[in-house]
Parts: sequence; structure tokens; C-alpha cells
Amino acid sequence: MNRRPIGVFDSGIGGLTVVRELLHQLPNESLIYFGDTARVPYGNKSPATVRRYAREILDFLVGRDVKMVVVACNTASAHALEELKRVSPVPVEGVIDPGARAAVAASRSGRIGVIGTAGTIASKAYERAIHAHAGAAVVVAQACPLFVPLVEEGWLDHPATRLVAESYLGDLAKHDIDTLVLGCTHYPLLKPLLAEVLGPAITLIDSAEQTARAVSATLAHSTLHAPKASAGGVHFVVSDAPEQFKRVGKRFLGEGVKEIELFALGDGEGR
Amino acid sequence: MNRRPIGVFDSGIGGLTVVRELLHQLPNESLIYFGDTARVPYGNKSPATVRRYAREILDFLVGRDVKMVVVACNTASAHALEELKRVSPVPVEGVIDPGARAAVAASRSGRIGVIGTAGTIASKAYERAIHAHAGAAVVVAQACPLFVPLVEEGWLDHPATRLVAESYLGDLAKHDIDTLVLGCTHYPLLKPLLAEVLGPAITLIDSAEQTARAVSATLAHSTLHAPKASAGGVHFVVSDAPEQFKRVGKRFLGEGVKEIELFALGDGEGR
Repeated sequence: MNRRPIGVFDSGIGGLTVVRELLHQLPNESLIYFGDTARVPYGNKSPATVRRYAREILDFLVGRDVKMVVVACNTASAHALEELKRVSPVPVEGVIDPGARAAVAASRSGRIGVIGTAGTIASKAYERAIHAHAGAAVVVAQACPLFVPLVEEGWLDHPATRLVAESYLGDLAKHDIDTLVLGCTHYPLLKPLLAEVLGPAITLIDSAEQTARAVSATLAHSTLHAPKASAGGVHFVVSDAPEQFKRVGKRFLGEGVKEIELFALGDGEGR
Repeated sequence: MNRRPIGVFDSGIGGLTVVRELLHQLPNESLIYFGDTARVPYGNKSPATVRRYAREILDFLVGRDVKMVVVACNTASAHALEELKRVSPVPVEGVIDPGARAAVAASRSGRIGVIGTAGTIASKAYERAIHAHAGAAVVVAQACPLFVPLVEEGWLDHPATRLVAESYLGDLAKHDIDTLVLGCTHYPLLKPLLAEVLGPAITLIDSAEQTARAVSATLAHSTLHAPKASAGGVHFVVSDAPEQFKRVGKRFLGEGVKEIELFALGDGEGR
């Protein structure tokens, strides 16, 4: 048993969908969440830059004495997970493998769609993860760069968002997929709209739930679980604009974000 | 006369609309353009963070021996121009005052609209600049956070972009404005669509042209113009993802971007 916190990070606010699920499944755990709001988004940045940012955040979280790190960002998982696992002194879990595993379990036809940021899709990380579990699966991928800004604007059910979704998903649907992985932690907020656009024949996989299960399994395996009597909760840290994080965070977390620590990474103060 | 380059910077790619106009109006000048693509966008970041980034870029450009600096980014102009002017060893010009001046000159009713990023609008920098030239002007401002990602996606004439524009501009139009300042260097690419949505009674002000005029005036005033025989041209530098800059840059510049230097700011290598 271990009372140290679990570190969770994302480029910004999307990882809160994973936090929500962690709080639900692991109510006794203390979490420390880092959102890199000074450099958000990661989705259109190069693998090398995303890796550099992720390493800085890993160092920050390890400095806060975490017992485990959850990369609650698909782009960072796609580009940096292997490197983080190699250098981290504590276990590291990403969001891609849990999502891929759930998609393989859900699909009957073996034809699986994946949507994500430009960076996640270009990395082909989901294809690799899905094929590791189901070599014969057919994976059809589509970058959806406008979904993140639409979610951050709060236009979850706006006619423009519907048009954007129809534009991005129209081609995907032609490939006869029966399962679609929401490969970005922002996308669960669009689930009702995406379900409407795609129709009931396509199962939507939200990796937050699966990731929380994987974290729970890792804790159990390493006997790192917090005691049942622990209160749990989250401490929030962002690299910029805490007020905005507070305002938008509620939509993701389902409850209000109270205190937020501001910590600038990647500059003199933070290094 | 002075053959040293003019430094131009933006959070990413939008400043190329200003570069295009500088090349047109000042064909003998050498430009060095810095796009902070590792930390783009600036529009949703805090004033303090934008100022820190802008200071780093100023230092970089001064290190490259520029004779003048053009802040070709509305958010950076809004938050950092005063500080840059105070600390810079060379003249600094932003995009806001030239745009405000042109709007005041164009408006007959004195009712002026301004659109921009969340940061630019929250700063009220355009209100201040417009009132400095026309104390009685009525300024109506509207943040349009989705325009930048839509432009970067290349959806300049997409039905979704039209819906977004109608949503953002519907309220503005009700205020009886006769002039609208495009307060973000990405927006000139949406000019045809915005003109359609708003109708012919509203004059659109694109500050790129005005900014180039202001730069020309500063050069003349300080006798910093390059000799008429100079060839001119642009050297491009970005902090991340040069290939993407090349791909999207053509839309902004109207011609291809050939060589691009990669220079990481704000980390060990760049400092």
C-alpha cells in the first residue's frame, strides 16, 4: 500500500476526462494533475517537441513524489510513451493501449475506425496497438483537428460542430467500421453528437474508462494502491491561465475545479 | 540607408499575411520571419506568458542583427508591445495601432467592430487604440476563437466556417457598425466569406496593409531603408514543425516557402 499521489498529465484540459474516471474507479487515490496550458495544444506539434515537453512534465511529477504517471493525452502517448517508460523511475500508463484493447474487444467485424489529432493519427500509434492485439484488424484513421477547439469553445451540440463532424466522419463511415476509437481526451464530450452522426451500428470507444482500469491493474500488480481509508482527491497544476482552466474544466470533470497551482515549465522559473 | 534585415514575428503562420504585404510594399528589404510554432497559438494564453514568449523572440531577432522588429501578431501586440518597445534596442511596430487608425479613417458612423482571439479581445487594446484616434467612437468587440483553427485547416469557404461566422458575427451586425477590424493575422484569408456574411455595408479592415505602411514610415523616419538596388526577400525560422509551416504557409504568403530554419526557443537548446 502506498499513499503517494498518482501523476496525471495532458497538454491542457482534455485529460480531465481521464481524471473523472480515475476518481470514479479509484476514490481512495490522491491525484496530481498537470495541464500544460502554456503550450497547448500538442496535436499539431512535432514528435520531438512533444517528447521534450513530456519529459519536462515527467520530471516535474517525479519531483512531486508520484508513485505512477498517467499520460492522459493521446498525442503525448503516441509520441512519448516509450521514452517516458524507458526513463521513468515509476510505472507509466498511456491512453492508447487501453483504448486499442477495448476496441478490439468490442469489434465484431474487425473493422475499426480511429479519430484523433493530426499528430496522433500521423504517428499510427493506434494502428500498431490494435494490430498488436488483433493482427488481422482493418484500421481506418481520420484526423479531426477542429474537434478540440470546438469542444474548448463549448459548442458540443452546435450546428457547426455537426457539420464538421459530418465532414470528418463521412468518409470513415464508408469503410464499414463497427467500432470507433475516440483517440483524443477531448472527444468524449462530443460522444452524443458523434453517436447521432454515426448512427447506432457503430460502437464508440472512450479510452478514459479503459485507462482507469489499466491504472488500477498496475497499482494492484505493484501493490501501490492507497489504503481504503484514504480520502483521495486531485491537486491541479497548470503552466498558464488557471482561470480559464477553472472555467472550462467543469465541463470535463463534471464538477467544479477549486484550487489551481500555477507552475511555468520550460522557462527559467520552471527549470 | 541600412541593409540589415527587418525582424517579423508571430505565434505561428498568421504573420505571413503581414510578410506578404511587406514584400509588396518594400521589395528591397530583407526580412527574417520567426514563427513560434512550438507554442502556437497565443490567443488563449495569459498576458504574462505571451509577454515572456515575445521577449524571448525579441532577443532572438536582435541576436540576428535586425534593424527593426514587426510584431505581426495581434495577441502579442496587445499584450507585449509596450514592454517590447521599452526594452528593444531597435524600433518596434505592432499591428494594432495601424489597424485602429485605418478603421477610424474608414468609418463614417464612428461605430466600429473588432474581431480577434480571446486574448486580443480581453486586452481591450483595440478599444484603447481606436479611442486614441477618435475619442467618441463606439467599439463593439467579439472574440472568434474558432477562426484560427478553421483557417489552418484550410476551410476558407466551408459551410461549417460560414455557420461559425454567422454565429460570431450575428450579434456584432446588430450594433450597426459600418467598419470591422480583422484583428488577427489569420483573418484576411476569411475576408471573402466574412464580406458575404456581413454584406457590402460593412468595410473590412485588414491591418497587414496598414502595418506595412507604418513600417515604411518608420524606416523613412529613421533613414533605415535598404538601398533601392537590394534584392530583398525573407528568411524563415520556426520553433517547430517546418514541414507543416511550408505546407500551410503557401496559403498565407501567396507563394511557396522554400527553406526554413528550425530553432527551438524556450528550452535548453534555444537559450
